Amino acid sequence: MSPVLPSASVLGARAFAALAGLNRFSDEPGKLTRLYLSPAHRQAAEFTKGAMEVAGLTAFIDAAGSVQGRREGPRPGLPAVVIGSHIDTVRDGGRYDGNLGVIAGILAAQAIRDAGIVLPFALEVVAFGDEETVRFPTSLSTSSALAGHYDAAWLDSRDADGVVLRDALVAFGGDPAGIAALARPPGAIRAYLEVHIEQGPVLEAEGEAVGIVTTINAQCRARVRVTGEAGHAGTVPMALRKDALTAAAEMALALEAIAVAHDQAVGTVGVFRPDPGATNVVPGAVEFTIDFRAPLGETVTAMEAAIRARFGEIAARRGVGLEIVPYSREEATPMAAELQEALAAGIARTGSNLSARRLPSGAGHDAMAMARICPAAMLFVRCEKGISHSPLEAMSELDAGIAVRVMIETVLELARRDGAAIPG
Amino acid sequence: MSPVLPSASVLGARAFAALAGLNRFSDEPGKLTRLYLSPAHRQAAEFTKGAMEVAGLTAFIDAAGSVQGRREGPRPGLPAVVIGSHIDTVRDGGRYDGNLGVIAGILAAQAIRDAGIVLPFALEVVAFGDEETVRFPTSLSTSSALAGHYDAAWLDSRDADGVVLRDALVAFGGDPAGIAALARPPGAIRAYLEVHIEQGPVLEAEGEAVGIVTTINAQCRARVRVTGEAGHAGTVPMALRKDALTAAAEMALALEAIAVAHDQAVGTVGVFRPDPGATNVVPGAVEFTIDFRAPLGETVTAMEAAIRARFGEIAARRGVGLEIVPYSREEATPMAAELQEALAAGIARTGSNLSARRLPSGAGHDAMAMARICPAAMLFVRCEKGISHSPLEAMSELDAGIAVRVMIETVLELARRDGAAIPG
Repeated sequence: MSPVLPSASVLGARAFAALAGLNRFSDEPGKLTRLYLSPAHRQAAEFTKGAMEVAGLTAFIDAAGSVQGRREGPRPGLPAVVIGSHIDTVRDGGRYDGNLGVIAGILAAQAIRDAGIVLPFALEVVAFGDEETVRFPTSLSTSSALAGHYDAAWLDSRDADGVVLRDALVAFGGDPAGIAALARPPGAIRAYLEVHIEQGPVLEAEGEAVGIVTTINAQCRARVRVTGEAGHAGTVPMALRKDALTAAAEMALALEAIAVAHDQAVGTVGVFRPDPGATNVVPGAVEFTIDFRAPLGETVTAMEAAIRARFGEIAARRGVGLEIVPYSREEATPMAAELQEALAAGIARTGSNLSARRLPSGAGHDAMAMARICPAAMLFVRCEKGISHSPLEAMSELDAGIAVRVMIETVLELARRDGAAIPG
Repeated sequence: MSPVLPSASVLGARAFAALAGLNRFSDEPGKLTRLYLSPAHRQAAEFTKGAMEVAGLTAFIDAAGSVQGRREGPRPGLPAVVIGSHIDTVRDGGRYDGNLGVIAGILAAQAIRDAGIVLPFALEVVAFGDEETVRFPTSLSTSSALAGHYDAAWLDSRDADGVVLRDALVAFGGDPAGIAALARPPGAIRAYLEVHIEQGPVLEAEGEAVGIVTTINAQCRARVRVTGEAGHAGTVPMALRKDALTAAAEMALALEAIAVAHDQAVGTVGVFRPDPGATNVVPGAVEFTIDFRAPLGETVTAMEAAIRARFGEIAARRGVGLEIVPYSREEATPMAAELQEALAAGIARTGSNLSARRLPSGAGHDAMAMARICPAAMLFVRCEKGISHSPLEAMSELDAGIAVRVMIETVLELARRDGAAIPG
């Protein structure tokens, strides 16, 4: 007899109810802002731990602030299928980015437990805490901890208020000295699966509820500092100015032009801080960030060269100092072929009206970090107008339920491939 | 017998000692930041009140937060010669901008008292508190209070932390309800004189210690809000973006070009705040300020029209919303001819090696507000490289002393013109 599994509509209702619970926790009233190691992050982690326990997982908040839940297989210590995503958000972010993937994992684990299914592996759900790189200048630090690639220098990084990550982690209840021990040994993770809203317009345009990610685009991030000369806005003649802001503005437009000129590339200035930042002062310095991405690593490399050349030309012409410090470079991360096939089988079992659309990811995800130590794959879910990182982020309840159901079917598919006798 | 007055070098030493005392008070350790109604402003006001009392003035901190000191003439209630400037600073500002003028007034009053000179008018020194427009979106609010042009709407304005000016004023010890009564009646001020560093490069280039201001340039300030669409920095294709930051960057460059194209004009973007301001989010909105000035009012009017046309064109092409809200417009303020002559006479008496260089002011000053109710004039003092609004602001001790001595001689010159028998 086939296991009794909840329908996509039931799973969707459960998902939206759980998301409403999780999204009560915000650092800013009236907005959803949940920064790594903030009070709201701690509350959300406790909520997530409780939800995992209700779903039959043994859960704890780990040394880096991630929530880990595990149900053992037929005997303790077997390799695990891990379903993960993150519960941190950008400032004034959306309700589904990250959060959906964590809730999908918990609901999938719960439905498999409720159906009395015995898997031939352990099943884990992980809620990472530092995916958005909003508070500290890190890069997927919490998933990198599991992957054994945590950069100890991150602990000394500071947020905009000067708070050191190490101190914030201790205040949160984490343990800087315990991070190294989070690294999973080779072979401990059978597969890493992540559900995430697409954050782009492709699935909606093609009328697909879900899609299978083929690769995560290469990306590079850098901090740029332009140093001019501060002066009085009324008394320094235009010809004598070394205005850091107009120099930086020209660089922002140059980045835009470079992105447009490269195949499927994007380029963004998201942070832009003039110093001192007063109406009547010619800015003496500007710090800004650049973020640029493309499906191929060589495109990103070419973009970086173009950025250095153009920014250097602008700085020289305007007589200002220029410092470009790349702090994050991610190569393209192809998703595991076997898992893409398992997702396709899971999608086929979920609904005959679904197709297994393949598409690349323009955004980075914790799956990038996890792919360093295990096969990893991602399921994208349709969202409204491709909007994310915004309170306007939206998706349908049924699509959320379909995603959970696909996760369940994919886990069962992997169980079958590993020899378990699960009817289907 | 001529009155015995201290030499410029003695006055310079006194001025630098007093400035060192005053400049202990800062809102930011290691920097000089003294914002209107801040704790450091309160401390500086108390220091200034004490210095005025030592100089023989009856002093108090008024309802708007200015420090007022007065020595009566031969009988109480005579019109006053007022020497004033401000003790607020920009963030991480310089030691002399504003502060020098207040100290110069106090030291001039002290030297006149010490010399036993009886003036035919009252002598006042005023330390205004809100000249820099850093904390609140006001415009010379404290000197406008004396001039009877205080805009009651300023009381409802907010700083970046959401603090309402009215509440900050009460916390400071001021009295919102008492501001209207600060307005001086017609004829109560015989003359307003202000010493200020030039904040420009002219006097240094010409080897002059001081200069006489002919006019204060016209200026306009506006807040600009560009509204695009926030999105994920990795997933929204360049062609579908409505990036508020690149639109605002293009506008900053357009303002620069407009300023360059107009005679003796300047244009500055000093504040620039992307929202949400995260590395991986395409900014959905940017707020920035524009400040543009020129010697003639019609030039500023023409610049504003050009700005509206160019910004509108950029916004339309990029599909973003645009709001330009001018919040301050100052017409050119010619300085009183009689007082310019008195300053020239004072300069001539101070040193045979000094000449009375006339020059316009590119910066706004409290003298603009005061000129609405009385004859007003300004003495500029040479500063290094024209730098101001920066910790690099610098000037010589002797130049400070020369400026104080010129103030003394100018007050005595006005006394003579009013019929006092003061030898010279």
